[in-house]
Amino acid sequence: MGRNRKGSLVSFRPDVRVVDCTMRDGGLVNNFAFTDEFVKDLYLANIKAGVDYMEFGYKASKEIFDPEKFGKWKFCNEKDIRSIVGDNKTDMKISVMADVGRTDFKTDIVNRKDSVIDMVRVATYINTIPAAIEMLEDAKKKGYETTVNIMAVSKVGERDLDEGLEMLAQTSVDVIYLVDSFGYFCPEQIERLCDTYLNVGAKYNKQIGIHAHNNQQLAFANTIEALSRGVSYLDATVSGMGRGAGNCHMELLLSFLRNPKYNKIAVMNFVEKHMLKLKKEGVVWGYDIAYLLTGILNSHPSSAIQFIKDKREDYAIFYQELIDHAL
Amino acid sequence: MGRNRKGSLVSFRPDVRVVDCTMRDGGLVNNFAFTDEFVKDLYLANIKAGVDYMEFGYKASKEIFDPEKFGKWKFCNEKDIRSIVGDNKTDMKISVMADVGRTDFKTDIVNRKDSVIDMVRVATYINTIPAAIEMLEDAKKKGYETTVNIMAVSKVGERDLDEGLEMLAQTSVDVIYLVDSFGYFCPEQIERLCDTYLNVGAKYNKQIGIHAHNNQQLAFANTIEALSRGVSYLDATVSGMGRGAGNCHMELLLSFLRNPKYNKIAVMNFVEKHMLKLKKEGVVWGYDIAYLLTGILNSHPSSAIQFIKDKREDYAIFYQELIDHAL
Repeated sequence: MGRNRKGSLVSFRPDVRVVDCTMRDGGLVNNFAFTDEFVKDLYLANIKAGVDYMEFGYKASKEIFDPEKFGKWKFCNEKDIRSIVGDNKTDMKISVMADVGRTDFKTDIVNRKDSVIDMVRVATYINTIPAAIEMLEDAKKKGYETTVNIMAVSKVGERDLDEGLEMLAQTSVDVIYLVDSFGYFCPEQIERLCDTYLNVGAKYNKQIGIHAHNNQQLAFANTIEALSRGVSYLDATVSGMGRGAGNCHMELLLSFLRNPKYNKIAVMNFVEKHMLKLKKEGVVWGYDIAYLLTGILNSHPSSAIQFIKDKREDYAIFYQELIDHAL
Repeated sequence: MGRNRKGSLVSFRPDVRVVDCTMRDGGLVNNFAFTDEFVKDLYLANIKAGVDYMEFGYKASKEIFDPEKFGKWKFCNEKDIRSIVGDNKTDMKISVMADVGRTDFKTDIVNRKDSVIDMVRVATYINTIPAAIEMLEDAKKKGYETTVNIMAVSKVGERDLDEGLEMLAQTSVDVIYLVDSFGYFCPEQIERLCDTYLNVGAKYNKQIGIHAHNNQQLAFANTIEALSRGVSYLDATVSGMGRGAGNCHMELLLSFLRNPKYNKIAVMNFVEKHMLKLKKEGVVWGYDIAYLLTGILNSHPSSAIQFIKDKREDYAIFYQELIDHAL
């Protein structure tokens, strides 16, 4: 079972792309309240580090979300991105995420020739794939690179997943992402899922990506497992900053990749200057037993986020609460 | 390449044994200064959790190490263990570790019939295997279960390792351990090494064990990779407490294993009562970029431990220092 590994531990695969999601998934931790200095320094660090794509945040609907109540990176206005990157005359591309049903994509996503954004990533659940396809085709028509990220796939049956992947693979989308929203999967399961995604990808000439969460301290392990099976788009965040247990750490990922274009030092210097400060200021993310519990129960981390916010430590009680509500 | 996986994700393998090393590897963090209440509660928690072996510490030579300068679990006197466990009339077995060249094994390890200890684990480097064999045969003659733990194997050439494994497999030893002392390996390397160890084990009817470190957040991933290839003795520590980046977290491991004898709740309650307190008191272990750097450079964590003790945050400079000294 399973395909052979692709590539080796001492060489590199030219198809690999590293996507920094610090501001997008990390924005879910601090309500997108990054200082301009943070964003500018992250942009410069990512360029030095050889990161291929930097995701600035969401293209959220201002009809649904009040811009007064969120940091600007929940909306990623063109002028806000340009205030950091100018015309982005660099080799690094810029991406934004657009949630199905939460984006006024017809108006808020302009033609690529008028935008500094290069790639639009559409986040969907299995039951909103037709709506995702509408958004994907709109973005492609406007000239963008596109990805589709099927969230919470650990809750999706295998037959539904097969069908969803077939539907998506028949669109113009460039990359289909395997997303472990709840940090539920172990590497052996990732191996199997990669087989499914990569088979569809091979059939329709699509690249495959992975976005992992660290509930079981497996985000990095799952990312490199997927990589070695043939997945090429790899999401990571600096210091693993992301919702709940966070994501694959960029420092770990860049240390692992052998392409000399990647430079972990730039990221480490950014950590020294900014991420340690964030932690000291009380911004909380990363592995905790509470996230382990939501992870193994295949549940959304929101209850664990609340548990930690409430400074609770009664894990056994929390586990019983989760079982009562989740199963 | 590599063997198929052994067992499945929904069943369990009866050959699996969980070894709690919290006091032994964790003792390297706090100089073995555990309170009696901590030790007693850990003992009771491990019994409830279904842990198969609890390691109390080292059998260190009092000629070499001054008992005034270390907690008592560096020496594991019979009377000190008995003060916690009585005659240990439970299903959980008790182990101690003995370092080659640092143990007065002829005098300090008494016959098993006079001891509450069940298993002696001999820690050796590749170049001290003949001395390890002397200790292993002594312990076996005295009636103990034995393991041999070849440390720092990431520094050992493949031919030397093959020869060392052959030598050890021809002794009376019960279990041969794959030890990633520096947190250097990724799961793909663990897969290959397991192949080597398991082939020797199959030839001579020896069990294989794994002891992982978390420098790259891979201790749990490497442990379950080894498990799925056929390794049966699995080391873990509560909250991952262990030298430097620490070890595979017991909470994660017990959550993963499907044998109903294992009960993660007991461990979580212990974490709530004791481990959070240790952390608050300033005992420091666990993943940090400094350990990532020593890990990928295949170096002893001591310089990273000092870096963290000195409250340094200049990772890039530290990395250059490591390269100057390590390579």
